[in-house]
Amino acid sequence: MPKVAIIGLGLIGGSIGLALKRANLPDLEIFGHDVEFGVNGRARKLGAIDKEAKRPAQAAEGAALVIIATPILQVKATFEAIAPALAGGAVVTDTASTKADIMRWAGELLPDDVSFIGGHPIAGKETSGIDAADAALFEGQPWAIVPAISASEAAINTVENFVSLTGAVPTLIDAEEHDSYLAAVSHLPLMLSTALFSVASRSQAWPELAAVAGPGFRDITRLASSNPSMSHDISLTNRKNLVHWLDRYMEELHGLRDIIDSSETQEELIERFATVQTARDAFMVAPPPKPVPEQPTDPMSAGERMMSFMVGEYVVRRTKEVQELMEKRASGELDDLEKR
Amino acid sequence: MPKVAIIGLGLIGGSIGLALKRANLPDLEIFGHDVEFGVNGRARKLGAIDKEAKRPAQAAEGAALVIIATPILQVKATFEAIAPALAGGAVVTDTASTKADIMRWAGELLPDDVSFIGGHPIAGKETSGIDAADAALFEGQPWAIVPAISASEAAINTVENFVSLTGAVPTLIDAEEHDSYLAAVSHLPLMLSTALFSVASRSQAWPELAAVAGPGFRDITRLASSNPSMSHDISLTNRKNLVHWLDRYMEELHGLRDIIDSSETQEELIERFATVQTARDAFMVAPPPKPVPEQPTDPMSAGERMMSFMVGEYVVRRTKEVQELMEKRASGELDDLEKR
Repeated sequence: MPKVAIIGLGLIGGSIGLALKRANLPDLEIFGHDVEFGVNGRARKLGAIDKEAKRPAQAAEGAALVIIATPILQVKATFEAIAPALAGGAVVTDTASTKADIMRWAGELLPDDVSFIGGHPIAGKETSGIDAADAALFEGQPWAIVPAISASEAAINTVENFVSLTGAVPTLIDAEEHDSYLAAVSHLPLMLSTALFSVASRSQAWPELAAVAGPGFRDITRLASSNPSMSHDISLTNRKNLVHWLDRYMEELHGLRDIIDSSETQEELIERFATVQTARDAFMVAPPPKPVPEQPTDPMSAGERMMSFMVGEYVVRRTKEVQELMEKRASGELDDLEKR
Repeated sequence: MPKVAIIGLGLIGGSIGLALKRANLPDLEIFGHDVEFGVNGRARKLGAIDKEAKRPAQAAEGAALVIIATPILQVKATFEAIAPALAGGAVVTDTASTKADIMRWAGELLPDDVSFIGGHPIAGKETSGIDAADAALFEGQPWAIVPAISASEAAINTVENFVSLTGAVPTLIDAEEHDSYLAAVSHLPLMLSTALFSVASRSQAWPELAAVAGPGFRDITRLASSNPSMSHDISLTNRKNLVHWLDRYMEELHGLRDIIDSSETQEELIERFATVQTARDAFMVAPPPKPVPEQPTDPMSAGERMMSFMVGEYVVRRTKEVQELMEKRASGELDDLEKR
């Protein structure tokens, strides 16, 4: 019976468990562990895991796939804790919002006969914790996949297939690129949102401001409700890129401020707003061309998906081809095929 | 037959028409005018207005209530156009996102025997134009009401009742306060969102950034899709307050940047994120205490609402009380009541 381990059962870990359960793979057994008291039991009752593990190593022991969904700074200690228990050939992945430090820790701490493929589901919501877990959280959202240099093709396929099962769109990317890009489109927005809520709510006029705050304000400050330790860990592990983008952003905003402040730049102002509106509307309708990840083109059965999930897609497809070949040989179709 | 005029039939004007129609007031006739070709007919077909007016003055002529929902900078010319046509005692309101300039123009251009009550529905969506109009757009959202000093109590009541009919929450406020508060919670967010989409989309790595942009990025850049001429008009008519808040914001963001950049301020960093998260969560559950607008406490019938809409609530309530008194007198209850 193939074993999968989820270590860290918050919003992300819990949602992964629920999504895997929803995919209805035969014979899959999910072991889960969370450091917080009571969370293991809650995750089992919600149907996110099958078995509660007392320690990370107990969850990881003999697992074909280990998913680490702890806060970023806890991933290092988790690597140390599970390293002795990991089976040879096991595939390990994570869900942290930054990747460069994670890849370095994996290289230092995980055994050589284990494949590490970094992961980052680019999804979330205002609420956190196991009770906010949602099987549909990842549907249609990008999920960055960052293979270690030493990772095998089969291990990459395993993680890609696992990601596809959750409904997310696997996006292969390098760790440095990941952290630089995410600084712009995820970590910078987090800081902008936080700073906006901070400056508004610390104003003396806050009760009056709040009374006229509409849906625009509520939407744009949504990220200010993010888990503080996540924001802290992101700031710490992606400091260089984040500061770079904060500086670029402040330069941009200062330019806009100066155009607004001058009475001689009205045309430039409306042109700027119009350019941005057009670009964003285009982005919402169809994002600019991007590298498309390799995806299976024909649907697989549940059994094939389970097998593919464990051994890599190539082996499954080759097996299927061979089986079809054998069937055709048995039915006498083969001669014709070989003559073509 | 009481006449209402809506001048400007975009998202806001169209939604006001639909909301008034949905309220199902007896004998109400809505005249509408839009400067753009074809919009009048479209608004009538959608059921947002009853009659198409060829010019603003034609719509306003003899109307008990005139609602101006044009772009901000067009409001001045609209005042000039309708002034000669307005009936004595007419109530005029608007929907512009800034109020100080509007109040000044109204004082200069509207006749003395007309009451002007500025208005601002704090609602909206990404799309604009009559085809995006929605009867439910204002439901539960704040709607700022800014009476001119000369406005009568009855005129204020008319506008408050009109706003309540759309489902919005009327919020009485002074023009200077309005513009200062809205600069913080609406116009500043508009600029932050615009600057973020601008800096990301002008980056060389934009296709890669877009590929990993998740729901957080899409939400926080929603306001960058706002109508460019609206953003321009806001910047122009609320320049001083907006620049003030942009400067306060940049100071806040710079402080956050410096804490992130330093390796010695980790505790301060997590504390700051935690403080903001707690404050925003509290805001979402229950906004801080604010001045509560006077609201009718018992429901009125459609006929009472129509009457109240036109003559002011006090008169309707007093009429209702007198009628009840007469009924009680007729049924012999009155002596007991008077003895209490």
